[in-house]
Amino acid sequence: MTKPDDLLPEGLEDRLPAQAERITRAMRASLDVLSRHGYARVRPPLVEFERSLAGRMDGVQPRRMFRFVDPVSLRTLALRSDITPQVGRISATSMADSPRPLRLAYCGETAIIRADQLDPARERLQLGAELIGADTVAAACEIVEVAVEALKAAGLKGISVDFTLPDLVDTLAEKAMPLSEDARDAVRRELDTKDAGGLKDAGGEAYLPLLYATGPFADALEKLRAIDAGGALASRIAGLEEIAARIGDGARITLDPTERHGFEYQSWFGFTLYAEGVRGAVGRGGTYVIKGSEEPATGFTLYVDQLALGGAEAEQTDTLYLPIGHDREAAARLRAIGWRTVAQLATGEDASALGCTHRLDGKEPVKL
Amino acid sequence: MTKPDDLLPEGLEDRLPAQAERITRAMRASLDVLSRHGYARVRPPLVEFERSLAGRMDGVQPRRMFRFVDPVSLRTLALRSDITPQVGRISATSMADSPRPLRLAYCGETAIIRADQLDPARERLQLGAELIGADTVAAACEIVEVAVEALKAAGLKGISVDFTLPDLVDTLAEKAMPLSEDARDAVRRELDTKDAGGLKDAGGEAYLPLLYATGPFADALEKLRAIDAGGALASRIAGLEEIAARIGDGARITLDPTERHGFEYQSWFGFTLYAEGVRGAVGRGGTYVIKGSEEPATGFTLYVDQLALGGAEAEQTDTLYLPIGHDREAAARLRAIGWRTVAQLATGEDASALGCTHRLDGKEPVKL
Repeated sequence: MTKPDDLLPEGLEDRLPAQAERITRAMRASLDVLSRHGYARVRPPLVEFERSLAGRMDGVQPRRMFRFVDPVSLRTLALRSDITPQVGRISATSMADSPRPLRLAYCGETAIIRADQLDPARERLQLGAELIGADTVAAACEIVEVAVEALKAAGLKGISVDFTLPDLVDTLAEKAMPLSEDARDAVRRELDTKDAGGLKDAGGEAYLPLLYATGPFADALEKLRAIDAGGALASRIAGLEEIAARIGDGARITLDPTERHGFEYQSWFGFTLYAEGVRGAVGRGGTYVIKGSEEPATGFTLYVDQLALGGAEAEQTDTLYLPIGHDREAAARLRAIGWRTVAQLATGEDASALGCTHRLDGKEPVKL
Repeated sequence: MTKPDDLLPEGLEDRLPAQAERITRAMRASLDVLSRHGYARVRPPLVEFERSLAGRMDGVQPRRMFRFVDPVSLRTLALRSDITPQVGRISATSMADSPRPLRLAYCGETAIIRADQLDPARERLQLGAELIGADTVAAACEIVEVAVEALKAAGLKGISVDFTLPDLVDTLAEKAMPLSEDARDAVRRELDTKDAGGLKDAGGEAYLPLLYATGPFADALEKLRAIDAGGALASRIAGLEEIAARIGDGARITLDPTERHGFEYQSWFGFTLYAEGVRGAVGRGGTYVIKGSEEPATGFTLYVDQLALGGAEAEQTDTLYLPIGHDREAAARLRAIGWRTVAQLATGEDASALGCTHRLDGKEPVKL
């Protein structure tokens, strides 16, 4: 019977064995990919001074953190809502003298005080990689490639990558399609809502074709190239082509050059990752500048709970029941070759109900 | 340059690559042992209603949690300081109908608002196993055996297990060595501080020999047996002998039957784990009754940061530098057989400074 005190707060939940096992599997497989590509794991703490975390985050993000007073320092602490700013801090302090590019990986729980409208979760297991000291096309190629490989290792299928150009309006407004500072904000807003009428009213008629330069990569890129009469986007277009070539047929690629939602802190390149069977994104990334140290960087974040949803079902592990008085050496030998064992503790147990498929008879497993 | 905002609060720290890698290795190896012994992983949330967590903890423990108001429920939330009560909650709610004994494992970060005098850490990576539905000698044998095996898998050497009998005074006071309720508390207190004079003054002269029944197991157990004239401890002594026999020469065993520090919630049996090269305990466990559901259980907790201190040094992984334009298939093939690679991003990089030991030349690694 569930009593009121047994309930969990909205957006926070237990992951029970089947789901927890999928999470563990996805997490290990992805982290192993990062490690093999030279990304070294760091483990920043769950809790930091709020000012330190917020100082390395942008905009409204710090308001999403759980905050509380530290009785030791009498300062405000916050529970991290994102590990990226912590990795930025490490790169700028303890690892400031490590040679660049610096490749770091992380994986840990984060929490937010209020959920998104689209996602009720207030806790998220975040896993990612940061390539610090480079925001070049080469850096972006590596980061997208490693992200896709990590998703595949986690068992995801039908992966697609949606590219965006977060500072597109600024780039165009400065060069090919002049806009006043005020009009720039309005144009960005209307592009965000993909409102053609609003865009015209805001004086952004020249930007209208951008709304249609979206979809499958090759086609959308041609449309973007056609808009770019003055050549202001030439280097960006070449960069996107190079990244797409690196992925090859490893994933479906789409382009939505005006997509800015969640990319407010990204510089020239951003991407969102999707996979078959998973509603919503499984991760995102891009190029950015680390706040505070102003060092260029490229990175990605994967949402491990989402990964676990799209991964393969756990295989039914053969489980061996060990009757009282069993041969302990035989049991240890079988565990060493991959068997999961369940030892009998008392008479009257039901081995099948306990999930066992086999029973140790002498030195060998026999099917139940 | 470290600015004030870059500092971390007292007792909270970054684990940088070398330490983080040792933690990951110790954690995976220990969790794999638990899994092979049939313990299924659960992942409770970082944050819960304070009342729900506190209701499943004892005594002063809830006061050690970070607490804050939830803007969604307007109730007080707490950051967990211990995962065991969460596993107890799961066993009593979502998994109430799962057959017993129920074997659950967990691993996650916990935080406390103030550190212990002996240990300045305010964040702890806690890993453990709970055998729910049994607090018998057989359950204790399994739990101690699995704990020792997990420590060995994490690379620890020179393991010792210190047994205690948490409810010893109550057992004796009820049967062989009568004590008033008041005197019982005083006797417990004096035994805790191992103060022979105080013990006499408290009217616990009969309990004096208990202070000397400590040390290497066989010897201390003989002393305990000599005290137990009335046979009140006979079943306890037989239980300890059975557990010790199960460990065999897998670990050094000691006995300190009056040790209660940290065992206030344990029932008849408790143990503390130590290892060579690690200051302080690496874990502890025992038998207990789950608060709320009142179900008997046996379990242990390991402190993963401590485990990582005592484990083997990370081996220097061979790392392969991949020059611009390298053979991508060769690189993927080498990663698949265990190489860690670092791809060149720009000219002028120093491969050795980036930690590389080899360089990909055509399809083969050559030493740098």
